[in-house]
Amino acid sequence: MERALRTLELYAHFCQATGIAARRVHAVATSAIRDAENGEEFLARARETSGLHVRVLAREEEAFYGYVAATNSTTLADGVVLDLGGGSLQLVQVEARRPGELGSWPLGAVRMTERFLPGSEASKKELKALRKHVASELEPADWLPRAGRRLVGLGGAVRNLAAAAQRAEGEPSNGVQGYVLDAGALGRLVEELAARPAEKRGGVPGIKPGRADVILAAAVVLESVLEIGGFEGIEVTEAGLREGVFLAGHLAPSDPPLFPDVRDASVRNLAAQYQDDLAHPERVAALALSMWDALARPADAAERELLHAAALLHDIGMAVDYDDHHKHSRYLILNAGLPGFSPREVALVALIARFHRKGDPALGDLAPLMHKGDEALLRRCAAVLRLAEQLERSRDGMVSDVKIRARDGHVRLELVSEGDTRIAGWGARRESALFERAFGRELEVVSG
Amino acid sequence: MERALRTLELYAHFCQATGIAARRVHAVATSAIRDAENGEEFLARARETSGLHVRVLAREEEAFYGYVAATNSTTLADGVVLDLGGGSLQLVQVEARRPGELGSWPLGAVRMTERFLPGSEASKKELKALRKHVASELEPADWLPRAGRRLVGLGGAVRNLAAAAQRAEGEPSNGVQGYVLDAGALGRLVEELAARPAEKRGGVPGIKPGRADVILAAAVVLESVLEIGGFEGIEVTEAGLREGVFLAGHLAPSDPPLFPDVRDASVRNLAAQYQDDLAHPERVAALALSMWDALARPADAAERELLHAAALLHDIGMAVDYDDHHKHSRYLILNAGLPGFSPREVALVALIARFHRKGDPALGDLAPLMHKGDEALLRRCAAVLRLAEQLERSRDGMVSDVKIRARDGHVRLELVSEGDTRIAGWGARRESALFERAFGRELEVVSG
Repeated sequence: MERALRTLELYAHFCQATGIAARRVHAVATSAIRDAENGEEFLARARETSGLHVRVLAREEEAFYGYVAATNSTTLADGVVLDLGGGSLQLVQVEARRPGELGSWPLGAVRMTERFLPGSEASKKELKALRKHVASELEPADWLPRAGRRLVGLGGAVRNLAAAAQRAEGEPSNGVQGYVLDAGALGRLVEELAARPAEKRGGVPGIKPGRADVILAAAVVLESVLEIGGFEGIEVTEAGLREGVFLAGHLAPSDPPLFPDVRDASVRNLAAQYQDDLAHPERVAALALSMWDALARPADAAERELLHAAALLHDIGMAVDYDDHHKHSRYLILNAGLPGFSPREVALVALIARFHRKGDPALGDLAPLMHKGDEALLRRCAAVLRLAEQLERSRDGMVSDVKIRARDGHVRLELVSEGDTRIAGWGARRESALFERAFGRELEVVSG
Repeated sequence: MERALRTLELYAHFCQATGIAARRVHAVATSAIRDAENGEEFLARARETSGLHVRVLAREEEAFYGYVAATNSTTLADGVVLDLGGGSLQLVQVEARRPGELGSWPLGAVRMTERFLPGSEASKKELKALRKHVASELEPADWLPRAGRRLVGLGGAVRNLAAAAQRAEGEPSNGVQGYVLDAGALGRLVEELAARPAEKRGGVPGIKPGRADVILAAAVVLESVLEIGGFEGIEVTEAGLREGVFLAGHLAPSDPPLFPDVRDASVRNLAAQYQDDLAHPERVAALALSMWDALARPADAAERELLHAAALLHDIGMAVDYDDHHKHSRYLILNAGLPGFSPREVALVALIARFHRKGDPALGDLAPLMHKGDEALLRRCAAVLRLAEQLERSRDGMVSDVKIRARDGHVRLELVSEGDTRIAGWGARRESALFERAFGRELEVVSG
């Protein structure tokens, strides 16, 4: 209690010093306070020390905010949202992006550790008892096996387990947003954690030492939910209760509070974070998609979306420095991330942006995240983006559109403009070699 | 001429689209236009196409701007500034930061290549003739061997040769600002370049393909200047004519236009680029230096300056993202750079900032840049910065100063405050282990 009060006090000072009014701070409390005998005393002291009015969430509210966080940071439409905390486990059924059945169970990682795995060693018998307990507790949730096939997970334990699986796979990591922890990898982690005494579980790469004491119980609870619901894996989101509370307010009065399109919202949010004026990236995106639509097969919708995202984000690295801004764009996209996209997709967007002006497109150290054919995808998207960037090199919309005639091995790109397109044409021709290698077609650039 | 005109036109469009008035653009031309027979014609067409009035610099003006760029991006006080372009070579003597003798010679890399190394292979005889020519041309500059011992170099050829030497040494590179290309490394590069036919010189790592055809002549001219002046190496700055023109206007009416302290200006410029409000970093810096002065030996002035820089810059990574902002601070410092600091010093500042809140201070992949004892330096500075950050964790200046009593193996840190220092003391005590390992002394934190 003392530590929590000190933290709140520090936070209140921080807010005051940075000009954030107390009434704009939404402090919420969950299971630990809700279920504590001295919860009321804590709330009174918190108000006294920090001036913050802490609102205690009902179980259903807590579950709802988890739902808001998950559906606004992933593309989940039908399935289940899981939020595993220290005290409780929340499950929310999602149908057509709306909340359905929801429940909260006292199956949190701290609680389960204290009750089932209190010692340094975890015996087979103890693990079995924990599994049995989870199964019996979740029995009333008969909707679980009938819910959609996707399971999205929130909470520090889920993030840590995903990070551990990522490390075990040797994948480059920029966080775990969108990572899918599959049942097999989770099972191997349970084995590895159970084989170690509790004080050594923090040594598993990816597991934070401060969470090591409860991570095994968390992994077993998670494993049981996967089994009971018949899920193949759990998709991780880094958003949590905090983002849920924020987004519920931010998106009100929409009911339920949802972004119309999570991926589009992610991209535009990141673009706006580093740029005041989106006129140039919007024009580059329009030109790139215009070329794309004339060249690509209809099945390439996913690829088209990555190109669009990279076009809107290609210049964000200028917020770091003009020199090497293509490399800085890559860094910012990888580090800030794009909720709603998988790690592979984020990496592709980052790479397309990286190669929008220089260099020979290659996957480099992000290759372990990629699928077959992704390097060719990168080369196609980078080639088109580079052409679009050249057409908009003067940043004044001189080239308003392009007309494309693709025939056999030949592509004719006609620049539509009310002005002088000599410079744009000259720039585009300089980039034709990359296009020709990526598409295996000759490129002719003509002024309209 | 056509390509230059197109580039100017593109640039004019770019300025218009981004709201930069033509009268705020200072376009200058150097040797190529100054010495061309059709220079006047070009200037007239440039004005017509782009609306830009291009000012042709006299040789002395060109040399002066090079001097302004060099003395504001390095700590050069006594020595020589060298600017090697395609057409000409400028040398400016510097005494007590003021310009002294200056001269310009038609010894540019393009000119020397055309005259002395026109073929694919460079013979010993040709190289000797070039060296002899440089020596004879520079004979009137009898002040050169008597000038200060530091030689600072500007221009693309110098940057490329430094990048090549850096690669050859296997050093991690974030640009060549402040890198010292010594005579030995330059000699080895001349040998390696001369051994290749001209069209393969771009294959030397660090040399840009577009510069490959003239890089050998540039290297030989540079080598000759080092020999004639008796310089041990050339210190590279990435600033050039462009920065010289900008800074001469920006720093006017100071005469000569100089930052009072280049290193301080660099740090404050970078701090202000990513932060609107410097109150918190200034307070952290003051607390860190206050501790430092009570702990360190007087000889540690250089270390103190690095600590100060890191304290002012520790939070700039928040411009990328709050999460992992210590890592983003490292990235921004390394990539934006700090003119006036050596690559090793920039790396140390980046690392001190990196470890201001988390992690076990280590040199990592920047180790090849470091000197003996630098890891201990990093640990000392990170430990002090972390304490200062904890004391200012609430960001409201609650702790106004510290009083230190250091005796034998014991350091007593007393917090000076008009308010409640419990939180600050609690935070500082959490970081005492790092301090104790770094300084080998026990730390006691007491409220004043």
